[in-house]
Amino acid sequence: MSSFSPIGPVVGIVGAGQLARMTQPPAIALGIELRVLANAPDESAARVIVDTRVGDYRDLDDLLEFAKGCDVITFDHEHVPTEHIRALTAHGHIVRPGADALVHAQDKAAMRERLTAIGVPCPAWARVSTAEDVSAFAAEHDWPVVLKAVRGGYDGRGVWVCRSADEVAQAFEAGVELLAEAFVPFERELSVLVARSPHGQGVSYPVVETVQQDGICVEVLAPAPGLDQEDAAQAQRIGLRIAHALGVTGLLAVELFETADGLVVNELAMRPHNSGHWTIEGSTTSQFEQHLRAVLDLPLGSPRMTSQAVVMANLLGGDEPDLFKRYEHVLAHDPGIKLHFYGKQVRPGRKIGHVTALGSNLDEVRARARHAAVYLATGEYT
Amino acid sequence: MSSFSPIGPVVGIVGAGQLARMTQPPAIALGIELRVLANAPDESAARVIVDTRVGDYRDLDDLLEFAKGCDVITFDHEHVPTEHIRALTAHGHIVRPGADALVHAQDKAAMRERLTAIGVPCPAWARVSTAEDVSAFAAEHDWPVVLKAVRGGYDGRGVWVCRSADEVAQAFEAGVELLAEAFVPFERELSVLVARSPHGQGVSYPVVETVQQDGICVEVLAPAPGLDQEDAAQAQRIGLRIAHALGVTGLLAVELFETADGLVVNELAMRPHNSGHWTIEGSTTSQFEQHLRAVLDLPLGSPRMTSQAVVMANLLGGDEPDLFKRYEHVLAHDPGIKLHFYGKQVRPGRKIGHVTALGSNLDEVRARARHAAVYLATGEYT
Repeated sequence: MSSFSPIGPVVGIVGAGQLARMTQPPAIALGIELRVLANAPDESAARVIVDTRVGDYRDLDDLLEFAKGCDVITFDHEHVPTEHIRALTAHGHIVRPGADALVHAQDKAAMRERLTAIGVPCPAWARVSTAEDVSAFAAEHDWPVVLKAVRGGYDGRGVWVCRSADEVAQAFEAGVELLAEAFVPFERELSVLVARSPHGQGVSYPVVETVQQDGICVEVLAPAPGLDQEDAAQAQRIGLRIAHALGVTGLLAVELFETADGLVVNELAMRPHNSGHWTIEGSTTSQFEQHLRAVLDLPLGSPRMTSQAVVMANLLGGDEPDLFKRYEHVLAHDPGIKLHFYGKQVRPGRKIGHVTALGSNLDEVRARARHAAVYLATGEYT
Repeated sequence: MSSFSPIGPVVGIVGAGQLARMTQPPAIALGIELRVLANAPDESAARVIVDTRVGDYRDLDDLLEFAKGCDVITFDHEHVPTEHIRALTAHGHIVRPGADALVHAQDKAAMRERLTAIGVPCPAWARVSTAEDVSAFAAEHDWPVVLKAVRGGYDGRGVWVCRSADEVAQAFEAGVELLAEAFVPFERELSVLVARSPHGQGVSYPVVETVQQDGICVEVLAPAPGLDQEDAAQAQRIGLRIAHALGVTGLLAVELFETADGLVVNELAMRPHNSGHWTIEGSTTSQFEQHLRAVLDLPLGSPRMTSQAVVMANLLGGDEPDLFKRYEHVLAHDPGIKLHFYGKQVRPGRKIGHVTALGSNLDEVRARARHAAVYLATGEYT
């Protein structure tokens, strides 16, 4: 980005899911033009972004055609093949995050190798090719062993918690490359979101607690309640350290386990992240605005919270496709609740939106967010 | 609106200026689909709303074609002929605000008649057809006399402040129907924004001070500093009373003069208004979200302020078309400043965007907003 007339640069986002959709509001404000590469013209972000191109992110020709005229390319998801990202760069396109950074969010073995090398706390881990490798790993680190698909897992998919050798076979049946990790007896899960721009500026958002059910994040509490100040600072240092060491440009979400012995890194994502949706209203600069600023190498915005307590609850589809009565109830019940829908039809268990509540008392704010999310999903009054 | 799947209703906005553009972010969040009727495909809102139709808002056929499939029709501006709005309604379309309300924002004589009838304080006024009518009005109310075009004026256009009979001819040269108003020796200008939904729910935002230069609003201070509590409550009562008496559905902005003798209504607008842009970050529910909720007859949102002091400064185009270096400076200088660009090329004096600053101290917040707006417009460091 080097001119602003003030119709600004074109940011191309590969993927047109809810993350690209939620990037449109700050792009509108900042005068940045978005383009998305969608699988279909009615996808979540395609419904709200004029310059939508339909194509296959696994096809280099589609990616090269998409990239023409973009000032920078970034991502809604991590599924673009690393070699295609390198090819885009070789063709002169600016891609942020770049392949050398992004590979650590695409390949869990590469991530573990690199984090171990830079001294970031991780669970014990090993690449495994056979059930014998897993038994050998368990002999050293004990059961349960967590087996993970090296590539492509998300929202609990591609993860197998094996309590004994008997449970290992199912993971190998998936036919994908696996990584073994020692089971971490964690107290809760935390997440820290940081942003880094190409010229090296970094910022960290407050550390949040993420509440999971069946491997899916259902609630995010900001800031993480009762978190020791030194632990919070350490989590932020870990986030910024990873971002700098890996050369991340854009956002980095670091999912952490809080254990009796301290913090351990669970996963990385290099894009706006579900654990940061609370920032839309809860921070001076939303994660979506921050990602745009970072990938355009603009000065980063303040990550300061706008309220003392913010709770985001994911909205999962239930059995009822028409949510009108529930929608109306929730808006009437709580004039301060903020609803976010992703333009997706209801399917049971599908993330179709989220709600955010803000205030000064965490328990009260959490009850408000939960009421709205549960009522929208189930029609039950909590 | 009666179903939500959760891909919601279609709201058609006639006009594709910055007000329609700024309605897209809350529409995205609420799952509401927007359609705009634009003059050209590169207009402000057309750049960010997928379902853009190009047509002429003065042409009934274009309006009828546009309205097909919309759940409700609303407006980005007040220039649609009243008879066309009645025709849309006669064809079974839902238009909010309706013609009977909107005419009071289109026709200043109709507005003065109605406000006088319901006992809302106005300046002395009269319809005038000749210079003699104006002299007769001045004989009763003294000079200066403010002559206003009954229809079509905005941002200082269509207003002539005549200090003597010698200055009256220029207004009649415009060849439009005129209204005479007594000049109000005001101390400052205020604005109150209210929303009303078809089922009769009303809310009022805090009263703000609007700072004008050459008939154009340059700054909005929220809440109006030092405003007497009783005056603030009276302004809110005036706003809600007008909204109810006129049957407004959607937003109503009431511009007021604060005088030594109390408040006097200056102008009405029935749509999101420049004096409410501060609500995007400064209120729990932005005026754009509120307008959508009101025209869809959804429960209204909380108008509560998110900070103690909010200042919005309009960004006017200067001589420099490429604002990149200024944009970068402003973002770096103040990580908390919020920029809003309207997707419009720079032209001297043209509103191309606005900036908003939030905080606890009005003077400090105002200095931050002014720094950003002045630097972006002129490159001068204040």
